[in-house]
Amino acid sequence: MEAVFRYRMTVAYDGTAYAGWQVQPECRTIQSELQKALHRFSGCDVKIHGSGRTDAGVHARGQVVHLDLVRKLDPSLLQRALNALLPDDIRVMEAFETSPEFHARKHAVGKEYRYFIWNAPVLEPTARLHHLHVVAELDLEAMQEAAQYLIGRHDFCAFSANPSRFVETTVRTLYALTVARKGSVVSISVRGDGFLYKMVRSIAGWLIRVGGGEVTVAQTAAVLESKERTSAVPTAQPMGLFLWEVWYD
Amino acid sequence: MEAVFRYRMTVAYDGTAYAGWQVQPECRTIQSELQKALHRFSGCDVKIHGSGRTDAGVHARGQVVHLDLVRKLDPSLLQRALNALLPDDIRVMEAFETSPEFHARKHAVGKEYRYFIWNAPVLEPTARLHHLHVVAELDLEAMQEAAQYLIGRHDFCAFSANPSRFVETTVRTLYALTVARKGSVVSISVRGDGFLYKMVRSIAGWLIRVGGGEVTVAQTAAVLESKERTSAVPTAQPMGLFLWEVWYD
Repeated sequence: MEAVFRYRMTVAYDGTAYAGWQVQPECRTIQSELQKALHRFSGCDVKIHGSGRTDAGVHARGQVVHLDLVRKLDPSLLQRALNALLPDDIRVMEAFETSPEFHARKHAVGKEYRYFIWNAPVLEPTARLHHLHVVAELDLEAMQEAAQYLIGRHDFCAFSANPSRFVETTVRTLYALTVARKGSVVSISVRGDGFLYKMVRSIAGWLIRVGGGEVTVAQTAAVLESKERTSAVPTAQPMGLFLWEVWYD
Repeated sequence: MEAVFRYRMTVAYDGTAYAGWQVQPECRTIQSELQKALHRFSGCDVKIHGSGRTDAGVHARGQVVHLDLVRKLDPSLLQRALNALLPDDIRVMEAFETSPEFHARKHAVGKEYRYFIWNAPVLEPTARLHHLHVVAELDLEAMQEAAQYLIGRHDFCAFSANPSRFVETTVRTLYALTVARKGSVVSISVRGDGFLYKMVRSIAGWLIRVGGGEVTVAQTAAVLESKERTSAVPTAQPMGLFLWEVWYD
């Protein structure tokens, strides 16, 4: 068998124009754009393995991927070549050679997502593609209190979409869940060992309802304990969400 | 003559998709989009008077405009109606009734522009529409020193494009010109009593050359004193520029 060289890259993207991370027929996706650029660069069909999928319209600052090439090369050459071939809404921010054992998805031990909300009467035009617009002033203290119920190891079934279709267990651990305001922007930052399908957008959707006074802080515990997804937990729109960082041991 | 009611509005826009502020045949412009929305709202042809033009691709956080309507109405109704009719890359941020004497352009006593530079090897995709990308690390101290030569009352002929075609005098006063860094973003902020055609982009273009070591700080004085526009002063690309604020007495 031919020797392969494995490369690890950090990829950032503006998800606005894409049907999400994963290759799908007839759709523009981040993974397919990267694979197309790699094909042009290497002349081979090279599969890109991401740390996980992101939904249509979701952005990334720090998606991590790996890929194999049959030749050894300077990772910065790989980075520059791909950036010259990719559309300008996808960029390789860093590239390294890594061990042939490294796996971007299987070895990820934690991730951080950030969700940005433009919380003012009028959404500034240059913020519109990367923030969810919420007009009513959010009660940050209530959102922070509700967040306390979700931190730790829990069954997050009530905060995911169709969980049984995708995974064996819906138990996950949140290491941190913070809500902060800076001017008109409210940001929700969440770190955990893994996330169910639409889990971050569901947590954001719930916290926004708490912050808007539609539901109470205390109801958070009841929803979590119900272990059942209901319409009480909305899925926040994708344009405010960024995959911020992925960790490895 | 019919009584008219004059309204003053602050308008923000993402200039990416527009051929600039001013109405032009066959082009999408900010002014024409505002006038189209006003026509749909009022049933009349209403002219929008801006504090000044912005070039194709330039953004605004605080463009100020005035307009006349034949009926008196709640300015917040005008604001909400226009925002419902406008494309989402143009927004009325504030609206007031004002004196029939007020004139957005003639009465402006000062303006602030900000120019944003992404100064790192790779441009983050979500920053690409609102920053100029400069790869080589900029020397902020040099840029700040060069800025000192430009502050005050000077003939800015060397920092404008075809000045004689547009104005009687090329003397202007800069109240402040600052350069700051925050992470990968270098911002240039300039305040003055008025600006010649492409003057802010020319000042930014020159300061970027100083920061990149292509020209010396001291050459700034010679260029200014030459009172002649040459290719030594490049016009920085429009996508980093924002009309930030306009002042009135």
